Parts: sequence; C-alpha cells; structure tokens
Amino acid sequence: MNECTTIDKPFCLYDADQHTNQESFAGPGVLVCSIDNMPAQLPREATDFFGELLLPHVPDLLKSDATSSFESYEAGSVVKNAVIASNGKLTPNFSYIDDLRQSKKRSQSKAMSTHQHSKKVLVLGAGYVAMPVVEYLTRDNNVVITVASAVREEADQLAQKFQHTDAVHLDVDKKPQDMDKLIQEHDVVVSLLPYGLHGRVAESCINHKVNMVTASYSHSFGKQKDSFSSRAEQAGITILNEMGLDPGIDHLLAMDCFDDVKELGGKVTSFKSYCGGLPAPEFSDNPLRYKFSWSPRAVFLAALNGARYIERGKITETPPGGVPLMESTHAFNCIPGFNLEAYSNRDSLHYLKEYGIESATTCMRGTLRYKGYADCLIGLMNLGMLQPTSHPALHPDGPELTWRQLTAALLNQNPDNLVENLKKVVLDKMGSQERLQAAEELGLFDDTLVVKLDTPLNTLAHHLEKRLAYGKNERDLVILRHDIDIAWPNKSKETREITLVVYGEPNGYTAMAKTVGYPAAIGTKMLLDKEIQRKGMFVPLTKDIYRPVLQRLENEGIKAAVRTRRTDH
Amino acid sequence: MNECTTIDKPFCLYDADQHTNQESFAGPGVLVCSIDNMPAQLPREATDFFGELLLPHVPDLLKSDATSSFESYEAGSVVKNAVIASNGKLTPNFSYIDDLRQSKKRSQSKAMSTHQHSKKVLVLGAGYVAMPVVEYLTRDNNVVITVASAVREEADQLAQKFQHTDAVHLDVDKKPQDMDKLIQEHDVVVSLLPYGLHGRVAESCINHKVNMVTASYSHSFGKQKDSFSSRAEQAGITILNEMGLDPGIDHLLAMDCFDDVKELGGKVTSFKSYCGGLPAPEFSDNPLRYKFSWSPRAVFLAALNGARYIERGKITETPPGGVPLMESTHAFNCIPGFNLEAYSNRDSLHYLKEYGIESATTCMRGTLRYKGYADCLIGLMNLGMLQPTSHPALHPDGPELTWRQLTAALLNQNPDNLVENLKKVVLDKMGSQERLQAAEELGLFDDTLVVKLDTPLNTLAHHLEKRLAYGKNERDLVILRHDIDIAWPNKSKETREITLVVYGEPNGYTAMAKTVGYPAAIGTKMLLDKEIQRKGMFVPLTKDIYRPVLQRLENEGIKAAVRTRRTDH
Repeated sequence: MNECTTIDKPFCLYDADQHTNQESFAGPGVLVCSIDNMPAQLPREATDFFGELLLPHVPDLLKSDATSSFESYEAGSVVKNAVIASNGKLTPNFSYIDDLRQSKKRSQSKAMSTHQHSKKVLVLGAGYVAMPVVEYLTRDNNVVITVASAVREEADQLAQKFQHTDAVHLDVDKKPQDMDKLIQEHDVVVSLLPYGLHGRVAESCINHKVNMVTASYSHSFGKQKDSFSSRAEQAGITILNEMGLDPGIDHLLAMDCFDDVKELGGKVTSFKSYCGGLPAPEFSDNPLRYKFSWSPRAVFLAALNGARYIERGKITETPPGGVPLMESTHAFNCIPGFNLEAYSNRDSLHYLKEYGIESATTCMRGTLRYKGYADCLIGLMNLGMLQPTSHPALHPDGPELTWRQLTAALLNQNPDNLVENLKKVVLDKMGSQERLQAAEELGLFDDTLVVKLDTPLNTLAHHLEKRLAYGKNERDLVILRHDIDIAWPNKSKETREITLVVYGEPNGYTAMAKTVGYPAAIGTKMLLDKEIQRKGMFVPLTKDIYRPVLQRLENEGIKAAVRTRRTDH
Repeated sequence: MNECTTIDKPFCLYDADQHTNQESFAGPGVLVCSIDNMPAQLPREATDFFGELLLPHVPDLLKSDATSSFESYEAGSVVKNAVIASNGKLTPNFSYIDDLRQSKKRSQSKAMSTHQHSKKVLVLGAGYVAMPVVEYLTRDNNVVITVASAVREEADQLAQKFQHTDAVHLDVDKKPQDMDKLIQEHDVVVSLLPYGLHGRVAESCINHKVNMVTASYSHSFGKQKDSFSSRAEQAGITILNEMGLDPGIDHLLAMDCFDDVKELGGKVTSFKSYCGGLPAPEFSDNPLRYKFSWSPRAVFLAALNGARYIERGKITETPPGGVPLMESTHAFNCIPGFNLEAYSNRDSLHYLKEYGIESATTCMRGTLRYKGYADCLIGLMNLGMLQPTSHPALHPDGPELTWRQLTAALLNQNPDNLVENLKKVVLDKMGSQERLQAAEELGLFDDTLVVKLDTPLNTLAHHLEKRLAYGKNERDLVILRHDIDIAWPNKSKETREITLVVYGEPNGYTAMAKTVGYPAAIGTKMLLDKEIQRKGMFVPLTKDIYRPVLQRLENEGIKAAVRTRRTDH
C-alpha cells in the first residue's frame, strides 16, 4: 500500500504484481480498506485467555539462542514447530516458503514481460455489445483492456469476466478531461458510445494519435466528417467507422459480391438490401411483433425518418414524419418461412457512388420487421403517441395522470370520460379495430400512472421498454439480405441472393451483440496487429479489410448463405 | 474362443468377460477372425538371426533350476529379468500381474452383477429417432440396450456411440423368429418400426409377456386394437402407444390443461390444436417451403387424407384425394413471426371423447406448413404427380424417360413436344404461373432420367427426397400449438395458448428426433422403473403419466409456453 484510504474513497485495489493502487472494484489485486488507527485495546477476558495459553511455553521461548544451531535448540514440539526462521535460514518445516518465493518470482517476471509487450485497448461503453468485443480481444494474452462506462457496475461486471481487463468509471459529459487522459494511455479506442459523442472521442484520438473504431455511420460525425478524415490522416491514425452489422457486415457482403462481379466483367444492375433485428419468431406475439433489449426511442425515431431510393431509374422520396414511411411498407417474401415486411431506410442513393455501382438503376435499402409492425405504428402515430415534441400533460412537474387520461389528453377528450366512449374516439382516430386492440394490449387505457418524460415519444418508449422487454429465455434474431442483379458480358443475367440469419443464444449473447460486436472487435484487432495500415477516416469497403473480416466472422458462426439464380429465361 | 470362424461367417466378437461369442461388429469384446491352420515355416534368414541373438544366453538358460530359489539363480540380467514365474511364484519384476488379476476379477464380478441386475431394452429400428432414445436410456448404468435394425450399419453406428448397447441385424419380414427370440430376452421393447409392423411386435410381446412402447397412433393396430388391449391386460403387460410428439406431447399438454380446468370447475368450450415439423424459417426457400430428412412419401400420403372437424357445433368433412384438403388450407397467424398455414388433420371428432371434453363445440386438429405449401401441392396434384396408383410410363421394366417426358406423359402430351409448348399445357393444367414456376424449380422439365417407382407419388417422393433434403448445416423446427377456450363457473371466459417451439441442432439431434424420441424414452424408463403399473394398451392421457413426462421433457429443454387471455370483454 502506498497510502491509506479515506472516507471519500474508502476502497482501493492493490495489485502486488505491479505495486500499484487503483480505484476500482474489479481486476487483479486485493481490495483494500486501510485505516490509519485501529483501537489497540483487547477485552480483559481475551488477554487472560491468551495469556494462560502462552504461559507454559514461555520457559521454552526463553531458551531460544540464535547463535547456536536450530537443531540444538531444546524446546517442546509446540514451540519448536512454530519457529519459522533461525540463524538467517528457514527451518525445515518452512523451507517450502523458498519454493513459493521462486515460483512467485517466475510468474511475476512473466507477468511483467506480458505487460511490457501488451497492446492496450480502451472500450468506451459497457452495454450489451461490449461483451463480445472484450471477449474477442482478450483471447490474445498480449491485449489489455480498459472498459470505461458512465455506469460503474456495468464496467465492473464486464471486467470481472475477462482476463487483463480493468473497469473505469467515466462520465464523458461531466469529466471530458478524464476521457482525454484515458485515451492517451491506449493504442486503440473502440467507441460504443451514443453516436452524438463520437466527435469528441475522435478529437481526442487525433490529438493523442490514437486509432479509433466505431460501429456507427460515418455521417454521425456530421459536417465535420471530411475535416476529421484529413486531420486523422495528418495525425497518422486510422478512424474505422461502420464496423458493426448495419452498417458493417452489410458493406462487407455487398463489396465482396460487387468486386467479384467487376473482376469477371459483369455489371451490377440492381441492389436491394434489407436488414432487421427482431425477436425470434416464436417470441413475436405482441401488437408490435417486436421486442426491446434497450430503449425503444431510437427505434421509434428511425420510423419517423424520411427515405429515398431509386428503382428502375425512378427515384421515390418519402417525407419524414412517420405515417408516409409506414404506409410505404410492403410484404417481404424472400425468406418465405418468416412473416416479414419492409420499409425503406434513409437515403439509399449515395450508396451507388459509395459502392461504385453507378451502373445500377435500382438501389434500395430497407428495414425488416414482422408483418403488422408498420400498421401498429400508424395507429400509434395517429393517436399522437409518437410525437417527439413536448406535450403539456407530460411535463415532469405537472400533475400525475394515468395512461387512460394521457390517451384522452392526446385526443383533447375529457380525461374522465367513460373508457367505452374514449375507445370509440380512439377507434375513429387510429383507423381500425386491430389498431384499437393494439392500444389496449399495450396498456394505453390502463389506470396505471404515467412516468412523464416531456414528449409522448419519450414517455411511450419508457413504457414499452419494460412492457415489451425480452423475457428470461427469449432470444433475438438478426436477418440481413442482399438481392443483387447482375448482367454478364455474354448477355446472361443472374440474381445473387445473400442471406445472413443469426439467432441469439438464450442466456448468452444476443444476435445483435454478436453481429455488431465481433466486426468491431475484429477491426480493432487488425489495427493492433497493423493488418490495417491505411490512415484517415473510412469505412470497410476494400478487399484487404472485408476478406479477412468475413473469414473471421465465419469462425464466430456468422456466415451468409449465397444463392445464385439465372434470371434470363 | 469356442470355435473357429468360417468363410461364410468370417468374424465374431469374443467377449472375454462373459466368455461368449457373438456375430456382431459392435459392443464389448474383441473382433476375431480365427483360422485353423497357419503356415508353420519361417524363412531361413529369420531363423539365423534369432538363433544368433539367442545363442549367448543359452548357457544361462541351462543353469536354471526350479528346485532352488529364484534369488539364488545366477544368470545375466537379460535372462534373469525375463523370468516371469519361478517355483510356482511370480518373480518380483512381474508381481504386478497379481494386482492386475485382482482388479480384473473385481471389475468382472461388478460387470456380472450389473448384468444380473440390469434392465434390458430392445429398440427396434435405428433411424434418426433411435439415437435420443438410446442416449436417454443409457444414462442409467443399469440399462442395457439391444438395437435391432434391418440396416446393419445404422445399428452398429448407434451401438458404438453409447455404453451397454449392442447392435443386432434383424429383418422382421424375412426372419420373424429372430425378432421373437430377441423380444423374450428383454424387459421392454421400443418399436420405432413403420407402423404396419407394430401388430406383429405386439403379438410377440404379449406371448412373451414383455412391455412395449411406440410413438405411433393406437389405431395403427387397426381393428385388432381392442383385442390387443385385453390380451395385453391378461398377459400382465403394458403397451404404451402415442409416446412421441404428435401423437404424444400434444396429449400431455392438452390433458394437463383439461384436468386443471376441470379441477377448478371450468368447462372446455373449444380445442384447436396445430402441429408441424418444418425447416427452420431461414431454410424454407423452395417451392414447397418444406424439407425432408426421410422419405417424403408419408408426408404426401398425409396430404391425400380426408379430414373431419367440428367448429361451433357444425361438422365439416373434407373428402380424401388431396385437392379438397389443400384447398381448405387457411392462414395461421397465432405465432406472427412465422409465415404459416394450416389444414385439418384426419378425424378430430373422436378426441372429444378421448380427452373427455364433450362440452366443447369446437374440436379441430391441424397440420402446420409454411404459406405456399398447399398451393404448390395443388399444382402437383393437378399435374397428376401425386397419384398413388400405377402409371404405365413408370413401370420399372419399361423404357427410360426424362422428367420432361414424364410430365408430358402425365398430361397425355407428345413426349417430344417443345418444352415451351409443354409449359403452356402445364400452366393451363396447374392453374397458375407460380405453380408452373414451382414445377420448373422442382426439376419437372429437366432432361434427367426418372428413377421409375411404379406410381407418380413414389417416383416424385424419391426425386424430392434428395432434391429437398436438409443441407449440412441446416436444421429443422417443430411447432405445436393448442388454443383452448374455457368457460368458468363465474361466467368469465379465457383462452389458453400453449406453444411449443423446438429447433433442431445443426450436426446434432433434429427437433423431430428430440420431440419424438425423448417421450418414448421417458415412457420406457417409467416402465423399467415400474413407475407405470397399469396393464393393457393405452395412450398417455392420465396425470400419473403426463405430469412426470412433461417435467422430464422440461429437463431436456422441451418446454411449452402457456399464455392466458381473458376473452369476455
């Protein structure tokens, strides 16, 4: 111990190997609570008791003489067996301590050499995606990891599970300087933080010349995207974005096919890509046919986006706001066993250039849901439940209200109306009996109190996060599908169908955690091992990256099936 | 060895523990090929070489004198170390042989006592359901199993995987007396044979007073069912049928609910039950949305059945022949993530009495398939491809023909018509473009030769068995669903939704093997352990059976989810 703990910081973790203290509950070492003064009094009974036990041996103790040999020391077995060292040597009973010291020294020097050669990764965020990231990276004994999270317990739990992993509490908003300090101590930063924070992380990574990996869209860096890219290049570092599922694995699988087609002289004429994270089909029986393992807020916000795609040369644009997008939803029958529907996902047009498939007259990216999702959302949107703007009834300091009263308030009805009358108005507003039933099953007529979070969207998201959470033995599912039409120089045509279906493991990783976490981890490992040398900010569209990543994902059981159909007869 | 092997029977398995020979390649023991005469000549070089090595030790050998002690025997170390026994005692170098003998004797007497106390199960059939049966039963060290199969390799493979399991070749048709002999040596017979053979097995079981378990319908015993039952009772044995999935687990789950309702004073007003074995949804992309792990023949024959059910007091009867049943198919939306359809399964009416739910005005049992299955079958039926009767073009000794020619022949077209013209006729006959496309994808216009098996149904079944077989990493899925409406004494109403979804394991058990095999194995174990004492022939409808079986299935990961919905508001 270098210092005593205090009331403010009552514990510290002492690592005897490294002779270091750390403020953490997890990692190697001994958790110490050290106090300056201890009360030095013993109760009298104890003094008497121990004194009586000791007294008979005092004559033997007095005979002890360190100038003569231990062997010649005449004492009873109780005393003689208790002597640990004599004349500067361990007594025979305790000579094993030498062996212990030797083996300790060996393992210590091994640990020191490991630490000296180790590669250091900082994982920002300790949510459900972080675990496969840490698990994958710590398979290499030379990698040490720091997991930093605003939720201390999450980081500690994660660090306890894996070797060479430390947990650190970090509140990026309140203590940005702490993050700065952490980043400069590491070789690569994996940011699993909400995408709004990536800019700040990138700033620090550029300043300290530290590589960075995210599973988020490059455009989450906003207008600064290009300036980040050139500054990263100048700093000689790599910022690798879109190393997750979607974006991520979708790029890898698409580019693998596109490059193959180009090499063989073909042309891509159409690219349709669909992706969804869903409950496994047997757990889909609720009005949304959807479940949540984190906040539904982002899911609902995505449904309010506008969208744009091109099909046979014709551009279709869907305005934001929700209902138009949901009404554009169509059945998706490509994997007939699943009961799916799809709606388009943001702006698909810029992928023509990004993927180098300007020859294609169709380019469309879509989101997959089970059939019924869009219709249920339309009902909720009609009701005003997905409004992302403040509503007076939902001011956190306003009066309490029940879900039935909130439903009434959103429709400007008397909050004390009979529920039967309210349901008639709701039916009229939502548009169908099924949607009304959905509202009932989601508890929107319940007499339970609302946790008011300013906007209807936030409030509903919080309500459904628990109500539609995954149950204990339930698992999720990820579906990714590319349909790529190809025209060959000999005029023949074909469609390649690339299908990736990954199920979560009950009580193990979710499918989403695996398919987002492993690509990010593999990209990080490639940076550590200098397999990726290119500098600047980019996404994984080149063969030197997607080939090895796809191969390594296969080793983790993440493998797409590819089927080719002739389409020219 | 008791005897030498012959050219006709060149191998036998010698079990030294039991000192028995057996004609088998599997099980404990040593596989022996013993020949009466061996050429007794050695080449001269070998005689010289060994002679020269031996010569220097001959003087020491001559000094050997068994009347004096071994210790006083003066010889070089080569000779002295080679003496195993002297004066009736093992020399010190070889005294360990005594220990070996002792431990061998101990294990032998243990083996003998195991065999004496062991319970003996005969498993007839070594197909894919047999493995979980044997695996479950051999968890008990006191159970020994004989697997008998007409396909010797299948039985051998199975026996090699599990302890205390022997394989026997058995052709019930050709050598019924062999089966008779086998049955009397066992305590329980599990018949996994085709249902047409159960009668013969039961005859033998009754004659030799041996218990019997099947996963097949009781009515597969035909008109003799009642006589078997009373004869089994007189013989003091149990014949337990319908211990599989459907029939089997469906009974257990239904009766568990019905008894519960009755105990609480409620009435069952409606029972709808659906079951299907399917490919996992991601492997469903073929025209039938179905795959086969064994012959499609039984699956197609089932589609040609008639059916009868009662709904709200009204009986609906569907004539046999195929098209009427397939046309009665309706969407099944109870598990929204799966894209399912259902058609009714045989005669549902007798379940009212069997289950003791005469109060119900709806009783319907259905088969589940992915949407599109029935429509594809209608197309094939229209084409004549599912005819179960002989067709002159398919006589095994007739001239060769291709699939395109067969399709033409079924429609009385010139077999050498242009394929485009043929397709027009086929489109007209099948009834839709989708069905025509299905015929194409199933290879019915291919120029490959047909393996002619007399009837179109047999021929198509053989063709699709390979074409729609499960791929290496593909897995199946079992879905079982009961919807039970209940009226309570206080006038309230509810629906209980009981859902069982089991996935197969790629490279492990299929879902079908698990859900058929484990119930059969558990029933067998209960007979061995005398947990089931009732005599006669019956199915598992009573609490003393379904309670423990459901509990033990849960331990194997086979557990239904139960949801209750109020339906009176």
